[in-house]
Amino acid sequence: MTPDADTARRRRILTGYRPTGPLHVGHWAGNIENMLRLQEEHDAFFFIADWHMLTTHYDRTDELPGFVEELVLDWLAAGIDPAKATIYRQSDLPEVAEMALLLGMITPLGWLERVPSFKERLRDMAERDIANFGLLGYPVLQTVDIAIVRGELVPVGEDQVAHLEISREIVRRFNRLYGDVLVEPQPLLSDTPLIPGSDGRKMSKSLDNAIGVRDEPDAIRAKVRSFVTDPEKVRRGDPGRPEICPVFALHRRFSPDDVDRVDADCRTGELGCVDCKTLLADHIIEAFRPYRERRAEFEAEPGLVERILAEGVERARPVARETLAAVRAAMHFT
Amino acid sequence: MTPDADTARRRRILTGYRPTGPLHVGHWAGNIENMLRLQEEHDAFFFIADWHMLTTHYDRTDELPGFVEELVLDWLAAGIDPAKATIYRQSDLPEVAEMALLLGMITPLGWLERVPSFKERLRDMAERDIANFGLLGYPVLQTVDIAIVRGELVPVGEDQVAHLEISREIVRRFNRLYGDVLVEPQPLLSDTPLIPGSDGRKMSKSLDNAIGVRDEPDAIRAKVRSFVTDPEKVRRGDPGRPEICPVFALHRRFSPDDVDRVDADCRTGELGCVDCKTLLADHIIEAFRPYRERRAEFEAEPGLVERILAEGVERARPVARETLAAVRAAMHFT
Repeated sequence: MTPDADTARRRRILTGYRPTGPLHVGHWAGNIENMLRLQEEHDAFFFIADWHMLTTHYDRTDELPGFVEELVLDWLAAGIDPAKATIYRQSDLPEVAEMALLLGMITPLGWLERVPSFKERLRDMAERDIANFGLLGYPVLQTVDIAIVRGELVPVGEDQVAHLEISREIVRRFNRLYGDVLVEPQPLLSDTPLIPGSDGRKMSKSLDNAIGVRDEPDAIRAKVRSFVTDPEKVRRGDPGRPEICPVFALHRRFSPDDVDRVDADCRTGELGCVDCKTLLADHIIEAFRPYRERRAEFEAEPGLVERILAEGVERARPVARETLAAVRAAMHFT
Repeated sequence: MTPDADTARRRRILTGYRPTGPLHVGHWAGNIENMLRLQEEHDAFFFIADWHMLTTHYDRTDELPGFVEELVLDWLAAGIDPAKATIYRQSDLPEVAEMALLLGMITPLGWLERVPSFKERLRDMAERDIANFGLLGYPVLQTVDIAIVRGELVPVGEDQVAHLEISREIVRRFNRLYGDVLVEPQPLLSDTPLIPGSDGRKMSKSLDNAIGVRDEPDAIRAKVRSFVTDPEKVRRGDPGRPEICPVFALHRRFSPDDVDRVDADCRTGELGCVDCKTLLADHIIEAFRPYRERRAEFEAEPGLVERILAEGVERARPVARETLAAVRAAMHFT
């Protein structure tokens, strides 16, 4: 089934987030700012992918309730608006599990085994015992997340187009076998900047190189001071190469008014790394000030998160039920 | 959690049946007669495994509603009694799908890949396109079928002990990770006679060597006439070897009063194969007469099957909900 071609209608866009721990600056620049745009332009469905969390963290579920709460508070404080976007928790829709069982029955093992992230996850987490059936089935569950709410668009980075492609293939296979029931989602390419962490690699909680969005100003200063810089610039006066410096990459993102001056003064050597980092830390602290203030307000409202999730799932449930009913009927489950 | 040790209490026993087509004499002797005993001795849960049917027949679901109806009518006509046994359809319990998703997250792929029937099915059905995620996950779904209703016993033939062992392992792994929540099922070894078909191999619909329990008398006579016999007994007067003759294997099962005479007269050569087969066909026709008569009565009751399935699932649902709630709580899904 092709999405409604009426471009005047807001198209449904879907994105999910695994509650695996506190947000950091890399998430913020990569996802949250994108979501803020999407909720203005589309019929946005943002969900907490708590079942997906089990694929890598099944042995840490005691952290789950806290992480879900924190993530919703983070979204709200960042400006995600429940009046604009439908915010819900995956596990509040049991229809998703049933449809995942059904779609798994028609998903070739070869498709799943070839997904690059499956082998990558196994390799990256070799010390953890995660080679489970659910990890292999991640793309099936992801397909259901999208298809059950009739998601038309899915924001993806360049490196994630392959992930969405398998969902499109599963949808096409279902429609070929049982009739034209499911909407084939389209990728919405979003260019998400790669945010480096303190060691120069991609910022990531598991690499312990991240600046948390809830970090106190002193912690942010300390973390920024620990960043690697151009190794050939040892002291003030040495000329630096901003294009290879992780600190400069963050200036690009957080210091719009100063970035040209930083670039020039680093190259001449006039700007030393200590001052450069102090400037960056100030900007980061400033950038997250409104977030920290709003977050404190939301935290003070008892029951807020559960209320928002309950309202969100009430909006998602009718379409999920309708899709599952159509899937069951097409497969002759009466 | 170990099952209640109070042996005075009737223990819950569970068996499921995939609705993949008409019953034949092999099923009857292998399973139905066993179920008739079990419903007297235990708290029997008999379910229609329609989701399991998808693992091999996902592309033939148009036959599903008819097969479900036929199977329930067969059970009733055979004497399975909804007042004694809880009869329900797997897909009427969405709790099963959710628990399957959760248990799949902790089931090592290696366990599933090593299950002998996985590779056997792939080999036996090489011409069909069944190497799907759902087929690999068969043991996970089977584990949920048992565990969600707190099944304590599962009747298995010698060759199926390995199938149940993986369910026991998954239950133990769950309890180790999340606490003592699930009942570990025990095998109840049932010695099911191997019933040969017309070509001497195990009777099986897919080998086209079966006598259907709903076959008309003339069809039964024709099918029995087509059976292979001892190849060294060409005509009456030749001595035969009952121990290698498929027709004699069926006499053992269906001709209790004549089996000794058949054995003796075959060996001397006095009994020819044509007469021997006529005798067997008479006995089989006679054996299924009460079944055929009761089945005609049940068929004449409109809505009977749906009513029985609806009543059955109402009995199964409370325990399924309770188990799923305990599983969710143990995994910190609130």
